[in-house]
Amino acid sequence: MQTFITENFLLQTEAARRLYFDHVQHLPIIDYHNHLSPEDIAENRKFKTITEVWLNGDHYKWRAMRANGIDEKLITGDADDYEKFKAWAATVPYTMRNPLYHWTHLELKHPFNVNELLNEESAEKIYNQCNELLQTKYSVPEILMYHKVELLCTTDNPTDDLKHHQQIAQSNSKLKVYPAFRPDIFLNFNERNEWLHQLQLLEQSTKSSINSPDDFLTALQSRIEYFHNNGCRLSDHGLEFMPLYSTGIKNYESIFSDLLQNKNVLQDDLDSLKAYVLFELCKLYYSKNWVQQFHLGAMRNNNSRLLKLLGRDAGTDSIGDYKQAGNLSVFLNELDKENKLAKTILYNLNPADNEVFATLAGNFNDGSVAGKIQWGSAWWFLDQKDGMEKQLNALSNMGLLSRFVGMITDSRSFLSFSRHDYFRRILCNLIGNEIENGELPSDFNWLGDVLTGISYRNAKEYFGWNIKLNT
Amino acid sequence: MQTFITENFLLQTEAARRLYFDHVQHLPIIDYHNHLSPEDIAENRKFKTITEVWLNGDHYKWRAMRANGIDEKLITGDADDYEKFKAWAATVPYTMRNPLYHWTHLELKHPFNVNELLNEESAEKIYNQCNELLQTKYSVPEILMYHKVELLCTTDNPTDDLKHHQQIAQSNSKLKVYPAFRPDIFLNFNERNEWLHQLQLLEQSTKSSINSPDDFLTALQSRIEYFHNNGCRLSDHGLEFMPLYSTGIKNYESIFSDLLQNKNVLQDDLDSLKAYVLFELCKLYYSKNWVQQFHLGAMRNNNSRLLKLLGRDAGTDSIGDYKQAGNLSVFLNELDKENKLAKTILYNLNPADNEVFATLAGNFNDGSVAGKIQWGSAWWFLDQKDGMEKQLNALSNMGLLSRFVGMITDSRSFLSFSRHDYFRRILCNLIGNEIENGELPSDFNWLGDVLTGISYRNAKEYFGWNIKLNT
Amino acid sequence: MQTFITENFLLQTEAARRLYFDHVQHLPIIDYHNHLSPEDIAENRKFKTITEVWLNGDHYKWRAMRANGIDEKLITGDADDYEKFKAWAATVPYTMRNPLYHWTHLELKHPFNVNELLNEESAEKIYNQCNELLQTKYSVPEILMYHKVELLCTTDNPTDDLKHHQQIAQSNSKLKVYPAFRPDIFLNFNERNEWLHQLQLLEQSTKSSINSPDDFLTALQSRIEYFHNNGCRLSDHGLEFMPLYSTGIKNYESIFSDLLQNKNVLQDDLDSLKAYVLFELCKLYYSKNWVQQFHLGAMRNNNSRLLKLLGRDAGTDSIGDYKQAGNLSVFLNELDKENKLAKTILYNLNPADNEVFATLAGNFNDGSVAGKIQWGSAWWFLDQKDGMEKQLNALSNMGLLSRFVGMITDSRSFLSFSRHDYFRRILCNLIGNEIENGELPSDFNWLGDVLTGISYRNAKEYFGWNIKLNT
Repeated sequence: MQTFITENFLLQTEAARRLYFDHVQHLPIIDYHNHLSPEDIAENRKFKTITEVWLNGDHYKWRAMRANGIDEKLITGDADDYEKFKAWAATVPYTMRNPLYHWTHLELKHPFNVNELLNEESAEKIYNQCNELLQTKYSVPEILMYHKVELLCTTDNPTDDLKHHQQIAQSNSKLKVYPAFRPDIFLNFNERNEWLHQLQLLEQSTKSSINSPDDFLTALQSRIEYFHNNGCRLSDHGLEFMPLYSTGIKNYESIFSDLLQNKNVLQDDLDSLKAYVLFELCKLYYSKNWVQQFHLGAMRNNNSRLLKLLGRDAGTDSIGDYKQAGNLSVFLNELDKENKLAKTILYNLNPADNEVFATLAGNFNDGSVAGKIQWGSAWWFLDQKDGMEKQLNALSNMGLLSRFVGMITDSRSFLSFSRHDYFRRILCNLIGNEIENGELPSDFNWLGDVLTGISYRNAKEYFGWNIKLNT
Repeated sequence: MQTFITENFLLQTEAARRLYFDHVQHLPIIDYHNHLSPEDIAENRKFKTITEVWLNGDHYKWRAMRANGIDEKLITGDADDYEKFKAWAATVPYTMRNPLYHWTHLELKHPFNVNELLNEESAEKIYNQCNELLQTKYSVPEILMYHKVELLCTTDNPTDDLKHHQQIAQSNSKLKVYPAFRPDIFLNFNERNEWLHQLQLLEQSTKSSINSPDDFLTALQSRIEYFHNNGCRLSDHGLEFMPLYSTGIKNYESIFSDLLQNKNVLQDDLDSLKAYVLFELCKLYYSKNWVQQFHLGAMRNNNSRLLKLLGRDAGTDSIGDYKQAGNLSVFLNELDKENKLAKTILYNLNPADNEVFATLAGNFNDGSVAGKIQWGSAWWFLDQKDGMEKQLNALSNMGLLSRFVGMITDSRSFLSFSRHDYFRRILCNLIGNEIENGELPSDFNWLGDVLTGISYRNAKEYFGWNIKLNT
Repeated sequence: MQTFITENFLLQTEAARRLYFDHVQHLPIIDYHNHLSPEDIAENRKFKTITEVWLNGDHYKWRAMRANGIDEKLITGDADDYEKFKAWAATVPYTMRNPLYHWTHLELKHPFNVNELLNEESAEKIYNQCNELLQTKYSVPEILMYHKVELLCTTDNPTDDLKHHQQIAQSNSKLKVYPAFRPDIFLNFNERNEWLHQLQLLEQSTKSSINSPDDFLTALQSRIEYFHNNGCRLSDHGLEFMPLYSTGIKNYESIFSDLLQNKNVLQDDLDSLKAYVLFELCKLYYSKNWVQQFHLGAMRNNNSRLLKLLGRDAGTDSIGDYKQAGNLSVFLNELDKENKLAKTILYNLNPADNEVFATLAGNFNDGSVAGKIQWGSAWWFLDQKDGMEKQLNALSNMGLLSRFVGMITDSRSFLSFSRHDYFRRILCNLIGNEIENGELPSDFNWLGDVLTGISYRNAKEYFGWNIKLNT
């Protein structure tokens, strides 16, 4: 059966099609948040099979396969690449209406030009066709070029030496690849052994000895400088919820010292220290004119059995129902009071918090830059048509859609860039419908320009990547 | 005025109609969760009036009548059956857009073939017409046959002797009627007098003396065996939220002993005991290969005046805003760690929790059976077009709709089976729209089969009712 | 470019248009909750510029301008009226899809008959045109007459002398303007200085000395009587969430005494006192047959910098995620138990609570009056097409839409009455769509009458304003 991924996919009105084809279809991609491997880019990696680039590491697909009754051996186990692909292919029809179903066929269409539906019957043919193209035509840089990727930001541990980023910068590639600073593990005091281990790495990478919160922050600051010199302009934090920041004096030194000595520390004290360190980091981000990102609300690693077997990011995370508003407001307000509030992007995972986030962001715009506090694009489980439409609608109703910095893949796979096209189609469709309904004026030049902004230009202007690296 | 309940009701596209008429319209009904009276089935009950089968006991209608300014005398008071029916008929037009408005006219159409709108003017004629049919044609088994009900599960107290289920099993009826095990009252330590009373009944039904948690669990286990031998394959628990289960040692014996002696017990201790007993029950469900259901999030009996007057289920319950994710995740994870996690259906009442539940379920699928952890159908206040569509959409986006075990009536009335038809129309309409929009391939055989699964086959396969009873 | 605000704006079907034009378009307006200035009405205020009536005081617009990168000088600063208008005009195109975009053009159309889109280019012409009409034609009473405003309720401090209301009542105007009793500041013990100051004003206005909770309540009761004699039939309370009311004995006297002496008081004690005072007030409202309103869920004054600069209502409020259901249920139940529950309107700000509120209201209808407990119209951030549709749909599904008392402006500007028209169009469109879809019978007389109720008549009947004032 032929695919349903046609030229007009998701563009339900003439107005939507006009907006899409005349204005946004061919725009380059700025993907300012993802989990791609800089090494794969630097090394022009060629994948042997589509399983490598498409199934290994994609916990979205793993979850779907488990829900479909597939044995773990065929998901993350020791089955061979073709067996795994076939198990996925057999699952695909059962994912109808899940974003995986659309993504799958978009990603087979682009870049592989597969026009058939993937299922058990078509699996072998499609497997061979894609593998051949991966080996002959679509190495990593060629995939990126196919999708007109202009700039992307990876997500990196503060101790990363960024040598792959440097290698890319020194190459002739026009593609910009910048690191983003993600120090989650350094704030995750509850995973103490890992924290202590990372602290050692931080000492090594900064050639310093860390015995106090001050030492700790000095070391992190030095890494921020290093990242900045390598083109980094974004930080990112993943948290269940913002810890409660208090301006009162706390004995951070003794808490930190207890941590170092692997002593028991009260959860309240850990939370205070976390809020303090985070606050100090945010002031540093402000001083470098970075954009800070907060990803809030995931409840991670719920399944101990699979955590033990596979480690983190194994497809056993879900949406939390934490309280978000109060602490987040206090945190941003205290930064604003000190005139140290950097440009900020807030992402929520629970869609029940959409309106809380959409409106909270609006409290801290100060007129210094358009769209200073952003409510980020629909994230993870929400990264699908319904979720995007809800985010776009709530953002429209409670903020300024026209100042939105737009879509990101947040992906671990080089085949995910079709999600930008998916987003653009959905966006054009929303606006097109309202033009046809008479809820917006039918001014295609103006609205096409607004959509160009959301799809590409706003991000470019917001992040300020006029970067000359010392390379 | 003629009814709007036409053949094409809710089927807005040609594709929707094709799916409905060619694939799901005539499927039998498996209603695996309701509150019907097994006695009424066993005794082939004939109702004297439509008030008996339709208004007595239907707290949905009571609420609507109270909101409409109707005096309690005409709702649950000593007015006669016709007066009550007339008061309801006068309220019906005011329920426009409430599911009661659609249900009312669906249920008058099926089985009574009433094509008029119900209101004060048409009340008398419709009352007489329905009463005559109830007395001459539509006894309980005939209503069930009319709706092609193949199997249904009632909801039963562990101490129930299940004699009506046995009576039905021993009859010639092709209809399967199985009990479901619902031990809520045994976990509701806060209603102490009722708990102590039920404990006595449990002692009697198990011919045992209960002096400890062990005795208590042994007695419940014996009832589980008894239910199993009578065809039960499901349990059900109604809870505000899952209590926090901890693997640490707790002095359950002394808490239990204090309970027995009607002493004050700390709420924390009650919650621990509740979590412990529930956990042990769930391991038993696993051992019997049952499906366990959890109905979470109702805030019940809010109106003390009506509770005193009418008892529970009086139409004064509403949607709670309890935290759900954390405790529920811990509970399922601990069962999974012990490899004792039964097939599970999770129902939430607060639609703000839809995505929390949809994603949480996905953390514990282990590939052993397709759709092992289900997010249950839209429940109670959500059991209407909007609520169903939201559940179907969130399930689609965050899980596998195609593995969904589908609709239940959850009703106390034998006239509610039209809700399955309502659900099927809504489902076909959703899928039909997406075929016409080009969001799904127009493969009617495949999608018709998926809808057959959701409407009927998935439940049949999931529950495993290959039951030969010792009757 | 010509405006998109046509005659058929938002009316997408023939049925919607029929309902709107034949039934609700020309109905008068009852605006039972707003923040308009009674002085401006009494004094027949004429505005010098549209900036005065449209931008000064409108924190919705301020937020949008800050998000658009506009300097505070041009928002609330010392720029002149034209500069401010121009800055707003330049922002308007960036508000596309925000309710401000629709409101702006509706309000320019009515009463100013501006048919052009507002932007930087059209700013000067529109500014002059509106200013001229404001100075020559549209004084406050003429704006109200233009919009067929029949009755409106302002929001007033208990110590207000209501002289402007008296002045209006004594005038020849057919317009009814009644006060509403809003004692928020008297329950806001955490802003102690302001509370103590207001207490002095209360002592003055009641010529009493307040030394105990009893004195306090007696003084408030005397103001309730005064308000009642001036036509007040509504109270209103703005709260983050309902405090927990307990029937147990508390030492309210000593808490109150500590408050008076500016001593530290535990937050728990403040909350208890708040619940107690509120409960006693509600019993008084019941005794006067008033309607009590509760606006729940705003998280206010998040930005300390702007609070200091501009005071409250500066556009730095947002949607909170407080727990609402439990305490609210207890509070209403305790009033109901004492048979002292007044007619009540509950408003939530977090749309995630929509279904909680919609169902909670239904627990306390007692059949005494149709729609006794109302779930109020979409409020503040939710006062837009999406928010209204969600409220109307949830109300329909979980209550009786037909008994809804409908829309309010909740506005500080005399130009906001178009919101009633906006609401009516959205309402007609919803019902029209369902007639065309076959989800409602196509009985236009009946449904037109239902919409007339929601748009106008229900409020008139519900509030009971057969008021003869002693003037």
